[in-house]
Amino acid sequence: MTPASGLPLALTLGEPAGIGPELTLDVWRRRTALHVPAFYVVGDPDFFRDRARMLGLDVPVKSVAAAEACATFDRALPVVPLDIQVTAQPGVPDGSSAPAAIASIRRAVADVLAGRAGAVVTNPIAKNVLYRSGFAEPGHTEFLAKLAEEATGRKTQPVMLLWSPELAVVPVTIHLPLKDVVGRLSKALIIETGRIVARDLANRFGIARPRLAIAGLNPHAGENGALGEEDRDIVAPAVAALRSEGIDAVGPLPADTLFHARARAGYDVALCMYHDQALIPIKTLAFDHGVNVTLGLPFVRTSPDHGTAFDIAGTGKADASSLVAALILAARLSAHAPTLATAQ
Amino acid sequence: MTPASGLPLALTLGEPAGIGPELTLDVWRRRTALHVPAFYVVGDPDFFRDRARMLGLDVPVKSVAAAEACATFDRALPVVPLDIQVTAQPGVPDGSSAPAAIASIRRAVADVLAGRAGAVVTNPIAKNVLYRSGFAEPGHTEFLAKLAEEATGRKTQPVMLLWSPELAVVPVTIHLPLKDVVGRLSKALIIETGRIVARDLANRFGIARPRLAIAGLNPHAGENGALGEEDRDIVAPAVAALRSEGIDAVGPLPADTLFHARARAGYDVALCMYHDQALIPIKTLAFDHGVNVTLGLPFVRTSPDHGTAFDIAGTGKADASSLVAALILAARLSAHAPTLATAQ
Repeated sequence: MTPASGLPLALTLGEPAGIGPELTLDVWRRRTALHVPAFYVVGDPDFFRDRARMLGLDVPVKSVAAAEACATFDRALPVVPLDIQVTAQPGVPDGSSAPAAIASIRRAVADVLAGRAGAVVTNPIAKNVLYRSGFAEPGHTEFLAKLAEEATGRKTQPVMLLWSPELAVVPVTIHLPLKDVVGRLSKALIIETGRIVARDLANRFGIARPRLAIAGLNPHAGENGALGEEDRDIVAPAVAALRSEGIDAVGPLPADTLFHARARAGYDVALCMYHDQALIPIKTLAFDHGVNVTLGLPFVRTSPDHGTAFDIAGTGKADASSLVAALILAARLSAHAPTLATAQ
Repeated sequence: MTPASGLPLALTLGEPAGIGPELTLDVWRRRTALHVPAFYVVGDPDFFRDRARMLGLDVPVKSVAAAEACATFDRALPVVPLDIQVTAQPGVPDGSSAPAAIASIRRAVADVLAGRAGAVVTNPIAKNVLYRSGFAEPGHTEFLAKLAEEATGRKTQPVMLLWSPELAVVPVTIHLPLKDVVGRLSKALIIETGRIVARDLANRFGIARPRLAIAGLNPHAGENGALGEEDRDIVAPAVAALRSEGIDAVGPLPADTLFHARARAGYDVALCMYHDQALIPIKTLAFDHGVNVTLGLPFVRTSPDHGTAFDIAGTGKADASSLVAALILAARLSAHAPTLATAQ
């Protein structure tokens, strides 16, 4: 099924020793039943042929140019080839892992910025493997932002949105020790995050007037200072500033009562102040099918919300639900605004 | 229905201007359909008669001694009278509020310690109203612990358990600003909490070998120090100490992946390091029917997991699900160990 944008999705290889390759094969094989939009994967066609054979999957693989992907998708897994032979075995990253994973991301981003792909969907990478090869970015998201900056010449502030049909959350601070959260949180950070979220929910998700619920940092959102001053002194002024810009933001709200069904009906996205405040509710409600969406980029990027899972790679046990959800969401988001490379 | 212990439950008045009285009347009225165990409320019989009339509820009220409560329960709401006339109107605490709320708690605790009641179930109080009357305890739980200490002469460490059929959680630290959590957390506190939880899950809940899942403080349980040292230096040694005592404790586990259905099947209770880490998942999964249970006391105490809700008091809009769950759970827990006043 060709996405509404008319363009295929560009799926990256990810870490070839992880579960990404087998999920890619599995999803292509079940593409019709799962209503998966047309995609191509950027990698080594022979690597995918070998992996299919190893897993006993009947998946024809075809080396294509991006422009041929939609026409090919019905009868073969379209692979846009890299110049790198991929040799990593399941669970065992090797010398081909990092160069191939990085080249695949570069090519997918180049394709979407050039209008050859509708969106980038990324298979999981192994940061430790990339670091050993000299990769200097903190993670996937920052690397994508850097590539976007190189291409557009504009500063890019990426924002992580975790999306599911049940709940969408944005952690305002992410991978920090809990004791460092208060020091990192600022009015400016909450405001900038809120602006990007509001803009991309309108542009990408087609929500005319997105409703943002802002969680308090402290228990009961601080009880007016009795349980911490940050909600009164940092979060509340940030919410007021967002509202003064015409953004429908409400808060700070007590986080414990923000995620039951009736509460969720009142907003489109919850901005949370730290990692577990955001990740606990979405992984409680949507463990298998959450999607990681990067907002703030000049293109659509989604990702399954899981890692490389080296321990089960090659066993066929990995669950493709999150990759399927990431592909379907990417097609939906790219239909609204194919690329913002020149529009921002 | 008389509880398995053979004793009625003692339900406190709570703040008479809150939703407690109307929930009490509503629950008694629907006692058969909801399978509510026999209870008596400690308060002013005329106050309950007036409130029933105001709400248009056909509830006969009978002034009784505790020993008559089970026999009375089928045909009238049993009220063990206090010497205090209660005059507070819905939403408007008055001079009778604090003395009556406190006297009701004292009497219910005296009854359970004397073997006249099987357990204490508390209606919500308004701490601000009590503070204005000179009440000096931080809250309900600490007051109950103080009464237990006065009666038994033994130091009492109360532990808050939030229970639902879906999930049970214990916050190791509770009402603290987030920035103070790390300073308050200690190996000794986690160990002491774990011991009380393991003992009371065995004694009260009848779980022969309770399985404790201990959440990490930091994202991903600290990633071996990369995201904070407390999980490695405080939580992990506490878990090891609990295990060395024969307690089935596992952790520190990443909190975000601890609360989906498959993960929950692996433990009986999750110990969380701070308020929102515990309260977010249980209020997401069981918003209306969570029960607050105080462990560590020499008697069973449960409470609905909501407040006085002055804004809707007297309207009949309040949801009795949590009070019903608190009564049913209290009867279940007191069946296992009627009172530990002399057993500890």
